Order: sequence, then structure tokens, then C-alpha cells
Amino acid sequence: MITFDTRPDTYKHWKLTFDGPIATLSMDVREDAGLSDDYKLKLNSYDLAVDIELADAIQRLRFEHPEVRAVIVASLKERIFCAGANIMMLRGSSHCAKVNFCKFTNETRLAIEDASAHSGLKFLAALNGVCAGGGYELALACDEIVLVDDGNSAVSLPEAPLLAVLPGTGGLTRVVDKRHVRRDLADFFSTLVEGVKGKRAVEWRLVDAVYPTSQFKEAVQKRAHALAASSDRPASGPGITLNALNPTVTDSSLSYSAVTLTFNRDKRTADLTVQAPTGPQPSTPEEILAAGDQFWALRAFRELDDALLRLRVNEPEIGTVVIRTEGDRDAVLAIDRTLAAHQSHWLVREIVHFMKRTLKRVDLTARTFFAFIEPGSAFAGSLFELALAADRSYMFHDDNEENVIALSPMNAGPLVMSNGLTRLQTRFLDDDAKVAELLAHDGAFNAGDAEDAGLVTFAPDEIDWDDEVRLAVEARAAFSPDAMTGLEANLRFAGPETMETKIFGRLTAWQNWIFQRPNAVGEKGALKVYGQQGRPEFDWKRT
Amino acid sequence: MITFDTRPDTYKHWKLTFDGPIATLSMDVREDAGLSDDYKLKLNSYDLAVDIELADAIQRLRFEHPEVRAVIVASLKERIFCAGANIMMLRGSSHCAKVNFCKFTNETRLAIEDASAHSGLKFLAALNGVCAGGGYELALACDEIVLVDDGNSAVSLPEAPLLAVLPGTGGLTRVVDKRHVRRDLADFFSTLVEGVKGKRAVEWRLVDAVYPTSQFKEAVQKRAHALAASSDRPASGPGITLNALNPTVTDSSLSYSAVTLTFNRDKRTADLTVQAPTGPQPSTPEEILAAGDQFWALRAFRELDDALLRLRVNEPEIGTVVIRTEGDRDAVLAIDRTLAAHQSHWLVREIVHFMKRTLKRVDLTARTFFAFIEPGSAFAGSLFELALAADRSYMFHDDNEENVIALSPMNAGPLVMSNGLTRLQTRFLDDDAKVAELLAHDGAFNAGDAEDAGLVTFAPDEIDWDDEVRLAVEARAAFSPDAMTGLEANLRFAGPETMETKIFGRLTAWQNWIFQRPNAVGEKGALKVYGQQGRPEFDWKRT
Repeated sequence: MITFDTRPDTYKHWKLTFDGPIATLSMDVREDAGLSDDYKLKLNSYDLAVDIELADAIQRLRFEHPEVRAVIVASLKERIFCAGANIMMLRGSSHCAKVNFCKFTNETRLAIEDASAHSGLKFLAALNGVCAGGGYELALACDEIVLVDDGNSAVSLPEAPLLAVLPGTGGLTRVVDKRHVRRDLADFFSTLVEGVKGKRAVEWRLVDAVYPTSQFKEAVQKRAHALAASSDRPASGPGITLNALNPTVTDSSLSYSAVTLTFNRDKRTADLTVQAPTGPQPSTPEEILAAGDQFWALRAFRELDDALLRLRVNEPEIGTVVIRTEGDRDAVLAIDRTLAAHQSHWLVREIVHFMKRTLKRVDLTARTFFAFIEPGSAFAGSLFELALAADRSYMFHDDNEENVIALSPMNAGPLVMSNGLTRLQTRFLDDDAKVAELLAHDGAFNAGDAEDAGLVTFAPDEIDWDDEVRLAVEARAAFSPDAMTGLEANLRFAGPETMETKIFGRLTAWQNWIFQRPNAVGEKGALKVYGQQGRPEFDWKRT
Repeated sequence: MITFDTRPDTYKHWKLTFDGPIATLSMDVREDAGLSDDYKLKLNSYDLAVDIELADAIQRLRFEHPEVRAVIVASLKERIFCAGANIMMLRGSSHCAKVNFCKFTNETRLAIEDASAHSGLKFLAALNGVCAGGGYELALACDEIVLVDDGNSAVSLPEAPLLAVLPGTGGLTRVVDKRHVRRDLADFFSTLVEGVKGKRAVEWRLVDAVYPTSQFKEAVQKRAHALAASSDRPASGPGITLNALNPTVTDSSLSYSAVTLTFNRDKRTADLTVQAPTGPQPSTPEEILAAGDQFWALRAFRELDDALLRLRVNEPEIGTVVIRTEGDRDAVLAIDRTLAAHQSHWLVREIVHFMKRTLKRVDLTARTFFAFIEPGSAFAGSLFELALAADRSYMFHDDNEENVIALSPMNAGPLVMSNGLTRLQTRFLDDDAKVAELLAHDGAFNAGDAEDAGLVTFAPDEIDWDDEVRLAVEARAAFSPDAMTGLEANLRFAGPETMETKIFGRLTAWQNWIFQRPNAVGEKGALKVYGQQGRPEFDWKRT
């Protein structure tokens, strides 16, 4: 079973060091410490194990080190920055594993950009040598890229010419959309195994600067300090500690303090339940700081994030997830008010953006989500986002109208989707008046009102409830998993596309396609024969 | 060999009739007149043969019938509008054929929307009965959809639940992005084999209105006249006739009056050459009207369009196309000036939008395009768009600087890509000043200037030219065709995404993926076992 808990003092592949406002995150991959013994992680190539530590480091920089303003992403291996995703690992992986691997690495790269955009944490990629494929894609996620000018070191995206696949971690999109490399130059670059180095790399905008070996270290330090000076991160600290989540794991469930995920493997479904907070809750930034990682909003969403990640990689056959909430919805609304009122405080800001990223993880999880809103539920404000993220919601229409949902300021902006819109804006596309009217609604919505308002999909009454929700789940679980993945990937992202949605929508969809084409993964496909005797054999038909 | 030439009096599947400003385009598919005898086109289901006639009809309405302001899309079969793409045809098609089929039908649906948006030609879908899958997607491309309310007739997208594939002609995107059906309702709708009918179809925005059988015909007429009244199509006429192109076809070439396409099958490449106009050219709308379909701008782009379509469906192994132009570039620039100056004239408008759609067809063709700009070429204005559409351009750097390219007002707006930007804007993304500077440039660009300005990719001199372009083509033709398709689909569409690019990028990419998954096309896949004994068997892993 793959788990996602780690911490810097147990990292095998990265070193995280600090020097005032500058942190250095150095890659030093241990060849023999990948997830499997089937391959060696040579030349700072990576597998999911390496990326789990990277994701953890970025998270901790935000919560544990508010004093850090710039991060140098570097390598401890001489003349090698990073050779990208390990090819032998990819070759040996199932289609499913490849797709999940790329999804997680994409989310991690986007987390770097999110930290830069929203947390004032700037990233500098210091390329001391070979920087190929996923290595260059990691650099592309940073604010600046500097490359050593030693006559040899180059950046490259050799996936297409060498392996007959695409750069899987946003490379093509970021080259043209983020760095504004001209599309014809990008085309040439993306077919060049040896990559581009020196002055040409700067002229084509592939990197921001090159420096001779003798000046490289000093230039990196200088630029990192300039980046730190451009940061708007508030001078503050100390940070809080993100302790291990330590869920109770059984064969059929994962149980955290506020989140439970139960698997019904024979039905290929799962039940995901989130508990609202209980007892007194912090109402000021100081109290939130004191509560640290035990503050419900952070704790519950960290647990939710961990549960989603484990579900993705360890439970491929669970296709349908029923989301429930339980507890005191007023307690959720009170926390939402506190969060909304104090978003300028560094820790509150971090918590809100973490909630946002976790909800994006729901949107991007290739499983069906149905929200069941039953008496005793707590679908209010930030927890109601789970119902809005779900593909459908079913709300029990009770006679006494006690089963209710409620909105909060957290539904009005802080928790945007990858498409740049809130889930309410996506739901009522191009109808801002409707969204404003709902947000201005005084008090909770009972089932009838919620259905009329379009906030839930269906509101069956007591006579129909059991059959309707049971049949809905059974029917869903019987459909082709691939068709449901494709359906959801389209319907969930109505409205505008952003660089982020282009990476998951256009680029990833094409990559998933190529990842199962015989030209890549067949017996004579390029990914299969790489490093072996003989050349790939292609079916030449263009599709 | 599949060809695309047809005309109304030889249509097998459609009837086109006229009543003043209202045209009626009625589907009456002949079961035995598909492209292959392997299937029967029952229940107004369609294959590429049916769609070729539809595309032709829409084109002729624009050029031959400027008096028409609204088109009723109807059926001549009782209680059946259209059952969608023929399933037996899909089942028997190669992956390549399925993808090409969907691409063409998508372009045809988008041509309907283009006619509405830019030509004042409004479309009303009159659903007199069963309207499933591709039938509903055809309706979704229309401005309005009315459905008969007979207790039985419904609209549906049963592809996912019935066949384990996605609606392949924009259905999912248009439901949420165009018609603003709420995403949870769209999710439910897209899993419902029987579809949605009556009042609920209106409430969910799936159709605009329903009428009882007794009122249906009258209501359709009334709404069509209201749509016609909303049209801004200038009262004008008569139209011009689009005569057959009649290329000379040999085993290795297609030759038209201004376009030649030569296949080098052993190298998997083709040479596409467009001739600039010769002799006196029309300079007023009246002269253009008199020239009709023999006017170079219309003739050359119709030929180009036809050549691209034949290349796509008949030459799957030709992966790389070298584009050249020949002749008098000043003649092209003169025509561009005439077109730009008279865009308010109905015929000029039609010609310019046709050129735009043809160039979009280049962008969306899954083949590599390299433009070779050599002495004697005519890459100016609208023809230079071909070089901008190409994945790369190579310009011969001659010592005497006579090999030049030039821009015109046609590069500044009329010929936008699917992403809503011009090719210059896409090339110099977010750099409007640069685009303005280039457009303001006085006169032509020689090779050195063009390279410095970023208008061409490379400008080798006489010493390097032969080897460089030969090696570029050879290298390209040796790469995996799938990887090149994916690479190009990403790099060509930098910048914003639109409903149109979402259909080709996100939706089509996912559909292409699903179209080769065993859950759809394997021996026990849903598309394979449909209509046969037994149920599909799925691999339940979610990816």
C-alpha cells in the first residue's frame, strides 16, 4: 500500500536547508530507494516516492516556514540536475499507474505555482547540469530558471523523439503558455533529444539566464535574494508543525479524526464521511496558531486530502464514492466566518489555500462522487463545496424540513476551481445574478428550497429516498469506468479553461491516449524497447 | 477513395427546400446508401456519407442562397428525428476512421454555428421524434431546439451508458458550455439511455420548447420566421454557384487549378503547393460576384479544403506535409486588400469566413506541416497564414535578398484560429505590441529580417538549405505518428481555449482515448457487443 506521510528528517531523495529567507531544496535521489526494486533511480530520475517527498517539502515550507520567501530548487549530484521520470519505472507500470503518477506530479508542480502566486513563496530552478524531460518540467513550474553554461548542460523534452510519448507534467503547455516560447521553436525543441543550451536557450525563452560554471553558484544566490525581495510574504513566524495523520487502517477502511473512508469492494463503491467540528473553536488568528495542525479546518482537509490520494493509488476498482457529512453545521459556518475574516493572516491564508487545493483534488479525481445530504448532515459553507464538487447531490426531503444546507462567504470566492471560477459560478455558468442571489440568501435552505434553487440535484422524499439513492449508485457502478472518467472530465469543467485546466484537460488527455498506443507501449513500442537492442517499430497511420 | 464533392440534386440523404427566407433541410437517410454495405443506416442514423451532404448543404446555403435567413433542420421520417452516428459503422471502423469521422462531423457542426454567428444564418432544430446521440448533438449546434411533446419523443446522449464511449460531436461541451445545463443535471442526463422529454427537457434547458403534435408544425414555422427576423443577413442575391472542383487524380497526386498535392508514399510525406493568382483580378464586390466560384480566393481555398479532407481520410500514412506557394505575391496582397476593404458585402464576407474555416482545417489536421519559403514563393498575407499555421517554417536565405514574405490586413483579424486569436497573436502570445509592430512594417521582409522578427523558424543559407530541410523532413517522418499528433495538438493552440477548442482539445482527446480502450472496443467491450447476445464485460479499474 502506498502512503503519503513523510517528513524532512526521513526524506531519502531531497535535502531541505535554510538560510534566512532562502531555502534550498536539493535533489539527491537514492538509486535504490524507489517504490519498487525493479528499477534504479539513476541520474536523479524519479518515481512517485521521490515526488511524494517533493510535495511534502512544498507543503511544509508554507506551513512550517513562513519566514522563507524564496526556494532554490537544486541538485546535489554533479553536472546532473534531473533526468526526469524514470523510464524503466514507466515501462513497468500499468496504464492506470502511469496516469495516476502523472496526475500527482502535475498537482505537485501546480502546488509550486500556487505557493508562488498566493503565498509569496518564489521558486528558482538552479540547473547545474543535465535537465531532461520531467526535470525540465519541474524547472518550468518555478518562477525563474537559470542554467549553467558549461558547453554541455542543456534543457530538453526528449519524450516524443525518444519514447514516443509526451512530456506528462505540463511541459508542452508551460513552454508556450507560461514562458511564451514561440510555438514553432517549441515544436523544434520538443523533437530534439539533445535539447538546447547556452545563449540559444535564453533567446528562445527556455531559461531566464545562463552563467559560466565559475559564476553559477553566486548568480543563483543573487537571483534567489532578488526573488525573495520581490515576495509579499509577511514577515512572520514561527510556523506550525504538520504532524503525521496516522489513520487507523483496516482492510476495508481508513479512519482519521474527522474523516472516514470505507470501501465496499464487492460493490466497487466507497463511503466518505467528514465530521464537522465539535467543541469550542478558535476565532482569532492567535487561537488558530495555538491550535496548529489540530485546528479542524486544517486537520479535516489534510485528512481528506490523504484519503483521496490513498484511494487513487491503492483502490483502482472503487469507482463511485458517496460523500456524507455529519455534525454541527453552525460550527462549520462559524469557522468559515473566522477564516473569511482573517484571510490576510499568513496562517489563515495557508489554510484556506490548502482547502482550495484539496477540493481541486476532488475535482481531478477520476471517480464518481455523489453527495448524500441526510438529516444530521453538515453540508454548510466550505463543507458544502463537497456537494458542489460532486457529480450529483441527493438531498433527503424530510417532512419537518430540518434537513438543510447553508452557504457561507467561503462559497463566494476563496475556494476557486482550476478553471478560475467558484463552484457556484461553474454551476450557474454566466449567471452572476443567480450566484449573488443565492449568496445573499438569509439562513439555510431546506430540501425543497435547495432543489428549487438548483443547489442540489434531486430531493427525494422518505417514500422514494432508499430506492432512488441505491439505484443511482448501483447504476453508476455498473457503467464503463473509462466512459465515466471521460464524462466527468468534461462536465466538471464547464466555462473557461486556464493553464491549469489545459494541463489536465488537453495535455493529459492526449498523453493518456498516447500512453496506451502500441507505438509507445506495444511490444515494439518506443517506451518498451528503450535501452534495449533494436529500434521501435511504428504503425505509421496518423490519427 | 472517399471524395467530398456533392450537390443537392444528387443528395441521397437530405432534401433542401426553400420558402422565401426560410430553408428546410430535411434528413431522410437511405438505409442502403452509406459508404459501406456492411451496415444499414436505419432510423436516420448516419455515416460520413450523410455528413458530407450536410456539410455541402450548409456551404451552399451561404454562397448560393444569400436570401435565406433561417434554416429548419428537420426529418422526413415519421416520429424519428435522428438516431445519431450508426453504431454498426462505428463498430466496424478502425480507430483512425472513427477519429477522422468525428473530426469531420465536429467541423460540420461548428460550421453551422459559424454560419449563425457570422453569416446571419439561423438554425432551428425541429425534433419530430427520437433524437439520440449524434442526432441531439446536431440539434445542439442549432440556435434553437424544439421538441414534439407526444409523451414519447425525448432527447438523449446514450453513448456512455449504452456503448461505453462519449458523445463524439461536442455534446458534453455544448450541453454545459453553450446551453448552460447545470453540470449535475448534465451528468444525470448523459447516463440516461431513455433521455429526457417534455417539460423536464425545457426546465433543464436541453431544449427551448416543446409542443404537442397538433401544434408542432405551426410552432416550428412561427419560430423559424422569428429567427429569420432576428437575422442580420443583408437582403441580397442572387447567390453564386459552387461548381464541382474536379481535380485530376493520379495514384500519387491531386491536381486542381491552384492547388497540387503530391504524395511521396515511400517517405510518408506530401508536397502541397498553392499557386498565387495570375492575370487581372476583381477589385470590387460586383466583379467578385461576376467571377463567382472562379475568383481565386474562393477557388484556391476550396481546392485547399478539398485536398486536406482527401488527405485526411484517404492517406493515413502520410505524416508530414511540406507547404509551398508559387507566383506573384503582389497579386495575393492586392486580393487581400480588396477582401479587407469590402468585408461588409455578403459575398466577400462569405469568402473570408470560408478562408478562415479552411485555415482552421489546417490547424486541426493531425499531420505535421512544414512551410518551405523559397525563391519564387508567394507567402504573402492570406497565403502567409499557411506558413503561420505550419508547425515550422524554413525560409531560404538568398544572398540577393529577393526571397521575401509580406503581411497584409488579412493577417490582422479576419482569419482567426479556433482559440479566438489570429495566428500572429498566437505566435507572439500576450505581446500585442510586437504584433502591431509587425503589422505596421512597411513592405516585405527578406529572410534575415523575417528570422529576426520571429516570422519564420529558420533561415538557412544556400550552403545549408538542402541538407537542413531534407533532414528536418526525414527526422519528422521517422517519429511516432501518435506522439506527433499529441505534440501538435498541444503546441498549436497556445493561449485561450474556447468552446470550439474545448470540443477538439478536451472532449475529443478523451473520446480518442476511450475509443481504444478494451472496455469500448475490446472483444467484450460495449461497442463490440452492442446489439448482440450477451452483456459487455468491463475492466473495473478507474484511470
